[in-house]
Amino acid sequence: MTLKVALFGAGRIGHVHAKSIRAHAGSELVVVSDVVPEAAAALAAEYGIRTASKDEILADPAIDAILVGSSTDTHADLIEAGIAAGKAVFCEKPIDLDLQRSLDCLAAVEAVGLPVMLGFNRRFDPQFAALKSAFERGEIGKGELLTITSFDPGLPPIDYIRTSGGLFRDMAIHDFDIACWLFGAMPVRVFASGSALVDSAVAEAGDIDTAVVVLEFADGRIATIRNSRRAAYGYDQRVELLGEGGMLSLGNILENTVVKATADGVIGAKPEHFFLERYMRAYQEEWAQFVAAVTAGTPVPATVQDGVNALRIADAALRSLRSGAPVEL
Amino acid sequence: MTLKVALFGAGRIGHVHAKSIRAHAGSELVVVSDVVPEAAAALAAEYGIRTASKDEILADPAIDAILVGSSTDTHADLIEAGIAAGKAVFCEKPIDLDLQRSLDCLAAVEAVGLPVMLGFNRRFDPQFAALKSAFERGEIGKGELLTITSFDPGLPPIDYIRTSGGLFRDMAIHDFDIACWLFGAMPVRVFASGSALVDSAVAEAGDIDTAVVVLEFADGRIATIRNSRRAAYGYDQRVELLGEGGMLSLGNILENTVVKATADGVIGAKPEHFFLERYMRAYQEEWAQFVAAVTAGTPVPATVQDGVNALRIADAALRSLRSGAPVEL
Amino acid sequence: MTLKVALFGAGRIGHVHAKSIRAHAGSELVVVSDVVPEAAAALAAEYGIRTASKDEILADPAIDAILVGSSTDTHADLIEAGIAAGKAVFCEKPIDLDLQRSLDCLAAVEAVGLPVMLGFNRRFDPQFAALKSAFERGEIGKGELLTITSFDPGLPPIDYIRTSGGLFRDMAIHDFDIACWLFGAMPVRVFASGSALVDSAVAEAGDIDTAVVVLEFADGRIATIRNSRRAAYGYDQRVELLGEGGMLSLGNILENTVVKATADGVIGAKPEHFFLERYMRAYQEEWAQFVAAVTAGTPVPATVQDGVNALRIADAALRSLRSGAPVEL
Amino acid sequence: MTLKVALFGAGRIGHVHAKSIRAHAGSELVVVSDVVPEAAAALAAEYGIRTASKDEILADPAIDAILVGSSTDTHADLIEAGIAAGKAVFCEKPIDLDLQRSLDCLAAVEAVGLPVMLGFNRRFDPQFAALKSAFERGEIGKGELLTITSFDPGLPPIDYIRTSGGLFRDMAIHDFDIACWLFGAMPVRVFASGSALVDSAVAEAGDIDTAVVVLEFADGRIATIRNSRRAAYGYDQRVELLGEGGMLSLGNILENTVVKATADGVIGAKPEHFFLERYMRAYQEEWAQFVAAVTAGTPVPATVQDGVNALRIADAALRSLRSGAPVEL
Repeated sequence: MTLKVALFGAGRIGHVHAKSIRAHAGSELVVVSDVVPEAAAALAAEYGIRTASKDEILADPAIDAILVGSSTDTHADLIEAGIAAGKAVFCEKPIDLDLQRSLDCLAAVEAVGLPVMLGFNRRFDPQFAALKSAFERGEIGKGELLTITSFDPGLPPIDYIRTSGGLFRDMAIHDFDIACWLFGAMPVRVFASGSALVDSAVAEAGDIDTAVVVLEFADGRIATIRNSRRAAYGYDQRVELLGEGGMLSLGNILENTVVKATADGVIGAKPEHFFLERYMRAYQEEWAQFVAAVTAGTPVPATVQDGVNALRIADAALRSLRSGAPVEL
Repeated sequence: MTLKVALFGAGRIGHVHAKSIRAHAGSELVVVSDVVPEAAAALAAEYGIRTASKDEILADPAIDAILVGSSTDTHADLIEAGIAAGKAVFCEKPIDLDLQRSLDCLAAVEAVGLPVMLGFNRRFDPQFAALKSAFERGEIGKGELLTITSFDPGLPPIDYIRTSGGLFRDMAIHDFDIACWLFGAMPVRVFASGSALVDSAVAEAGDIDTAVVVLEFADGRIATIRNSRRAAYGYDQRVELLGEGGMLSLGNILENTVVKATADGVIGAKPEHFFLERYMRAYQEEWAQFVAAVTAGTPVPATVQDGVNALRIADAALRSLRSGAPVEL
Repeated sequence: MTLKVALFGAGRIGHVHAKSIRAHAGSELVVVSDVVPEAAAALAAEYGIRTASKDEILADPAIDAILVGSSTDTHADLIEAGIAAGKAVFCEKPIDLDLQRSLDCLAAVEAVGLPVMLGFNRRFDPQFAALKSAFERGEIGKGELLTITSFDPGLPPIDYIRTSGGLFRDMAIHDFDIACWLFGAMPVRVFASGSALVDSAVAEAGDIDTAVVVLEFADGRIATIRNSRRAAYGYDQRVELLGEGGMLSLGNILENTVVKATADGVIGAKPEHFFLERYMRAYQEEWAQFVAAVTAGTPVPATVQDGVNALRIADAALRSLRSGAPVEL
Repeated sequence: MTLKVALFGAGRIGHVHAKSIRAHAGSELVVVSDVVPEAAAALAAEYGIRTASKDEILADPAIDAILVGSSTDTHADLIEAGIAAGKAVFCEKPIDLDLQRSLDCLAAVEAVGLPVMLGFNRRFDPQFAALKSAFERGEIGKGELLTITSFDPGLPPIDYIRTSGGLFRDMAIHDFDIACWLFGAMPVRVFASGSALVDSAVAEAGDIDTAVVVLEFADGRIATIRNSRRAAYGYDQRVELLGEGGMLSLGNILENTVVKATADGVIGAKPEHFFLERYMRAYQEEWAQFVAAVTAGTPVPATVQDGVNALRIADAALRSLRSGAPVEL
């Protein structure tokens, strides 16, 4: 069976997913929809497919699944509309910036039996998967202290920041998800510290650009998230997990392996620049696992519940930042 | 214009090329031919294309280019037949194990104006390309001492070795090509040292499995090639180029970036296992450059002349090994 | 002038300092004192020097300086007695586990003009010094986010832990000092999270073995300290400092540079095992700077004030841990 | 027993050895001799010892051992005079630039039972020792292909080159020794390739500055030595040993572990600059092993025979370079 897919959203991430759908032997992209008709038309032309409205897509019995890559404020609605139309749904994170709206969506998803998967891409990155697999094989025994570093290469436009939900919901949410995924548990207490150091416009927009979040788990394990919106050397994505038997860590993938040694020192390449480069393989793998979940019934590896969990932590971090005190979950 | 391509050879490397052809927006795989009909049929089914005989393909005016991925003894014939039929040709290395046959083929190619490209994949690897580019930007000034390490992960079947043309023509030929490509010159003298250390069956087959070749260039520059058929840790592909201003080097790509630190030491992943993994991106890039050469008239970046040059060095290395003395080129 | 030195404490750290004193051309170890006469006698025999009581040493006008390497509860008394006797003092950290006692000692030191230096060894490590120097040259611009990792190779005896003052005063105090030293400021708020994960006996002793401390500075900069009493792979001492222009980081020194690549992976040596190996050069350098401060009048590079500052942070961390809330400084 | 030592040669390497002698608890430097009286006087003043003539030293029954760090042309004479006077001898390499003179000296040494040790410092470097030890524990099984890289940071004065005996006898001789030491055998055939690329004055002085030497062993093992007199990034000292079970390699020690990541790339420190920095610990260790050989009767770990072996290979390499053909040993 080839999965017939409709794509919502013809922007940058929409193109990434279109490519993954085409590259997968078990899925076929058949239609695209975007609120900007020119964007939909361009993607449709590139892939030799048609464009359609949301209603046309949902009414089309030939469509097996929808991929939601449109703006955040459409996610929950499209998830609910998709499952109401009997379609499997793959949706970019987050479900919604509002926790209650996300919980409503979760309830709707749980009420039907259809596969709904969230695009927590890092879980599907071969590096993260290799670390988790080594951890689960017991190579360092019980985990104790986890540190996730996630620095973006540069500040996004202030307009983006203004509607992003803030650093914790927009950026750290991936790290909160990874912490829960690796430790197999939700934290019980969250403390956040943050500043706007990169650009004062960030503070004016009510956000921060540099943060540390400490997550405490019921059994005493601790996770620390370090975030910055601006690392001059590129996208910095690392994990360190200390356990009773030692440490598992995951480093950056460099742009190339060429090293130059001169009188000035030994100079290597920077990390891959940003998420589209760094997580290219993760995007392909998450799609493959979604296709398998729909066509072969394998478990959905990143659920709406996972999205709710990460958002809960992000909300707690924001409350901690504002109150100056740790927040119980 | 979309380049219509016929593939000769439906084996392992044929599948690699079929994938590259499909992934490229400017080329389309339309037909496959193989001496084993079942192999051709399987690839054709996978890609939704037809199979055909050599003669049918050459006679088909709708075919713009042929990709030769069949056995070595068919290469020179298919190159000549392809250009005689007016088609562009991409051919896996080598042209032929026999130098005279290769020279005849070169003469035929030079007599027509059609693009004919050899699959010296390493030239197209982003790592090798980055090193060459840095060298050509003058980052270490004039080159002096080049070392190329090329170890395979394990001995191929002895039957393969018997018909391979020997380690120099089969394996080191890539390294000879890279040395000439980086130094922009042919060596003037070749000295080879080699042994069968991995398996005595290699010696019985008249070949070696471990070798060092020294290439001397007219202006005093020296290149050393190190080869082994068996590195227990995987495919070892490295380059070091010492110049007046320092060194440029190129390391292995590891299977992943996960590192485990325990009481036993700090343990990282092995290099990517073999050429299909390590040079995956090189295969895509060489195809893109071939398509550009055919459709946009850019220079062919790995020519039949390059193939003849590398074979000359391989032959000289073999004569040096047998005579025990250096051989002038 | 050769500095004549008396050593208090003939234990492990006393021997380290005795070696540094002897290796320095400008200082001479002349006498040792220890509450365990056999320990003093053994060190005296090894170095061909005499033993003496505390009072004899303080009364001896030939003694220029005392080095205090005896137990923590003697530090403040010996500093005060030393300066009262007109001697320069080098004292192992901490001044005292009690903040008020430390403040009294600071007042006494400030009342006289004599050089008194604390043994914050990391400041003198060539690696830490190189990082600080690069930072002060402006190589990454303004600092934003600092992370200090400090893991010991294994749990000390529980009896040691019971009298150590706890993880923050005993172990993290070095990290608090380094954070202030690098950022050139005291934090304004401290949040601590900690658990006893390595051994339940640690909890029974009223201490923790795993901790994260977040330090917030007045201008928004953030430092995170990560501590564990047990890293199976050895002493893990690293620093990462993210600034506007990039990152400066400092890695572990490995036991050797030998790497083994086999079918099991690529295996390197562990970090140097513990502080005596890792900071051997730091101990020599701190002594050289003390000698220079006494004989050439250069500034004392680690003062009693620095010791008070670090202890204030440790106390705040402990209050934060106990209260569950951040503590203002 | 404390070994009473006389030092011949108060130059740079003489000072290195003087420091090692003083640092060792079992040896005492008592007298120094140099053809330049001012040099001897300066070292004597620094160490609080006396100066003396060669004859006075040899006639002094209180001297147990002599350390020969004077110019190469004095080595063989001083070894022979030393053992004739009943003293143990530690002599810098080489014995002599002339093979016959070296053989005569070897005969003299073998005729008496006194410990005579050559300063092949690399054997005593902890890195080289760790690699050899891992190899001898069988961690990669039988060795097959050895590569030794030895690049100096810069060209010495041409006057030095003129009297040095040439790159093979002066510089590569260490690498020849290491190859024999690791493989436990002498090569049976030597091929050398070399050029003067760094400075044409080197060629005018009859020497080369860039070289590759291939050593073939009776059982088929191959070693390659790579030499350059000028690596802009510092002293490059590496070993790679491929065996049936994988590879053991030994990397450079960097000046520090600080890494700077910026928009320009990831920049680390250079290798330690030259032999005095890189092999500081080796000098201490070789002296300790000499003292043990003399006082405890442990085997001399680098003999005059080893010096003769390395010189034989150097001579063969030179003959190969001049004749253009491999040379049998």
